[in-house]
Amino acid sequence: MSMKTRRIIHFFLIAMILVLVTFSVQAFEPFQPLPASPPIPDDNPQTGAKIALGKMLYFDRRLSVNGSLSCNSCHDLSHGGSDFRALPVGATGSKGKRTASTLYNVAYETVFFRDGRAATLEEAIQSHLVDPTVMAMPSAARVRATLADIGAYRELFADDFADGLNYINISRALASYIRSLRTPDSAFDRSLRGDKQALSVQAQRGFRTFIETGCASCHFWVNLSGPVPGLAFQQGEGFYELFPNHPGSPEEARYHLSDDLGRYNVTHIETDRRMWRVPVLRNVALTAPYFHNGSVATLNEAIRIMAKTQLRVILDKADIEDIAAFLRSLTGTFPRITIPQLP
Amino acid sequence: MSMKTRRIIHFFLIAMILVLVTFSVQAFEPFQPLPASPPIPDDNPQTGAKIALGKMLYFDRRLSVNGSLSCNSCHDLSHGGSDFRALPVGATGSKGKRTASTLYNVAYETVFFRDGRAATLEEAIQSHLVDPTVMAMPSAARVRATLADIGAYRELFADDFADGLNYINISRALASYIRSLRTPDSAFDRSLRGDKQALSVQAQRGFRTFIETGCASCHFWVNLSGPVPGLAFQQGEGFYELFPNHPGSPEEARYHLSDDLGRYNVTHIETDRRMWRVPVLRNVALTAPYFHNGSVATLNEAIRIMAKTQLRVILDKADIEDIAAFLRSLTGTFPRITIPQLP
Repeated sequence: MSMKTRRIIHFFLIAMILVLVTFSVQAFEPFQPLPASPPIPDDNPQTGAKIALGKMLYFDRRLSVNGSLSCNSCHDLSHGGSDFRALPVGATGSKGKRTASTLYNVAYETVFFRDGRAATLEEAIQSHLVDPTVMAMPSAARVRATLADIGAYRELFADDFADGLNYINISRALASYIRSLRTPDSAFDRSLRGDKQALSVQAQRGFRTFIETGCASCHFWVNLSGPVPGLAFQQGEGFYELFPNHPGSPEEARYHLSDDLGRYNVTHIETDRRMWRVPVLRNVALTAPYFHNGSVATLNEAIRIMAKTQLRVILDKADIEDIAAFLRSLTGTFPRITIPQLP
Repeated sequence: MSMKTRRIIHFFLIAMILVLVTFSVQAFEPFQPLPASPPIPDDNPQTGAKIALGKMLYFDRRLSVNGSLSCNSCHDLSHGGSDFRALPVGATGSKGKRTASTLYNVAYETVFFRDGRAATLEEAIQSHLVDPTVMAMPSAARVRATLADIGAYRELFADDFADGLNYINISRALASYIRSLRTPDSAFDRSLRGDKQALSVQAQRGFRTFIETGCASCHFWVNLSGPVPGLAFQQGEGFYELFPNHPGSPEEARYHLSDDLGRYNVTHIETDRRMWRVPVLRNVALTAPYFHNGSVATLNEAIRIMAKTQLRVILDKADIEDIAAFLRSLTGTFPRITIPQLP
């Protein structure tokens, strides 16, 4: 899809949403409870055995070059699926340039990484394993060889995949596990299903302010991160926004918001400068610090900056508190995760 | 206890054990199934609430100076309680000089760290948190302040301890959790309780070779690491051995076994040079690589070296395989651990 077409669809979507939110048309709901299952690719159907294998890999530090990191080191399932740091540190000590995102509910997204450089979760995983700033494995072959040295993994891959242990299947097992990481039944989900007691009065007020301020122009739908697969966007297509939308603010300078050119680094198209995938807001209250560079420590400050730099709205303290209460209502129910015993 | 007294007791113990093993006197059992509970200090009784709080802390990376490590990063409960690396890497990237030990069943020990520099688990934890090569927190006050910033922790400490959140109580909660990390019901435990089918024929042969070779002179009792609390040794007293006992072997040079002076670094007593706490053998098959510097990759090579450098016995391959089979029978039943959701 060309940039132009995409922008047209985007503006059309925003207009549609505002109309629909205003008139509460039943046929189209801009906010939806978390569906029971994310989209599952045809070439990687979910099975219990694959999810269990992927879970072992998710916690296995041998997937990093020096055994220092597992997936869970930065996408920490005890910490809302992220870590508490501004920027992650890779296996060899090099600092990442973007904050670690939560993987809870990420399977509902159509594109991966903040700059959308991976079209599928499998692709994102493959790239992370050999990224020198992340797991830093020297090659796909080395990842495969590391697991091939462990008899139990060889057997599990032989059981779960027709073509056994290979790099693609390593990413498939991990993706299957990550697709199982859902946090349904947030207060907001319950409210969407008709429970009028689910949201506090403050959160209800915050939800209205969230819509009226314009936050919902981008933060809508299943993950409050824009269109979901099958609706307007296909897998691999992303919903990007300019950030900061109104440049030149003191916040932009203070928090270095424009140092990273975002999607431009992937496409080298001028209009992609400082374009970013609209991030998931589910569990956002747990995933401080905020923004692509992790530069903002608190949820309230993040809300204030977003309103100002994106929408030219100066929110007062009460409005910010209300929106924060609404965002806290997006904290879902986390699965009980038993740590695997690794072979 | 003086060095001399300790050595006398030590030789007396070894003599006693050999006699007892030989004659199978019922009154004194040199090997025992893992007791249901480790010794619990009077000033830190186990409670469910404290164990749950300690578990949160165990998985919380905010206990390291830069949020990079939790206790579980090196004492990984998915990896037999240890990591797969020769030497651990601290929060700030500095390499530790001793391999990370498993914490499963460590609560049955009388002294902590390989050089015995901590008399209690609480003391060991306090020292690790501010050790610049480990969690690297600048001070106890900073650890306390980090947790005091998190409302839920303040409340939990207020609930669980009369004097609320302080550094000692942080170590107490963590120690309570670590004391709950037991792996009972290994094949060897079942065999000790009378199950004649529990050990394979090879493991039974290995157990005999283990005793006849002399390994059991030091590796006996509950953790196969020497005396347990209340029997001969009190909390804070350690069972140390010279390693290598017969210096000058090619293995000593190849694996740098004498570079680290062990207990001498703590006491600066000449006779403590290269003295080491006898390590726990439970789950040893899962905690490669081996020795204080993690220099030996495989269990079989570790067995060969121990027989040669400690006992001047050259084991043949079949003997080594038998002893390895016996050591694998020390792998216990791991608890189901659900990851905590952190505040």
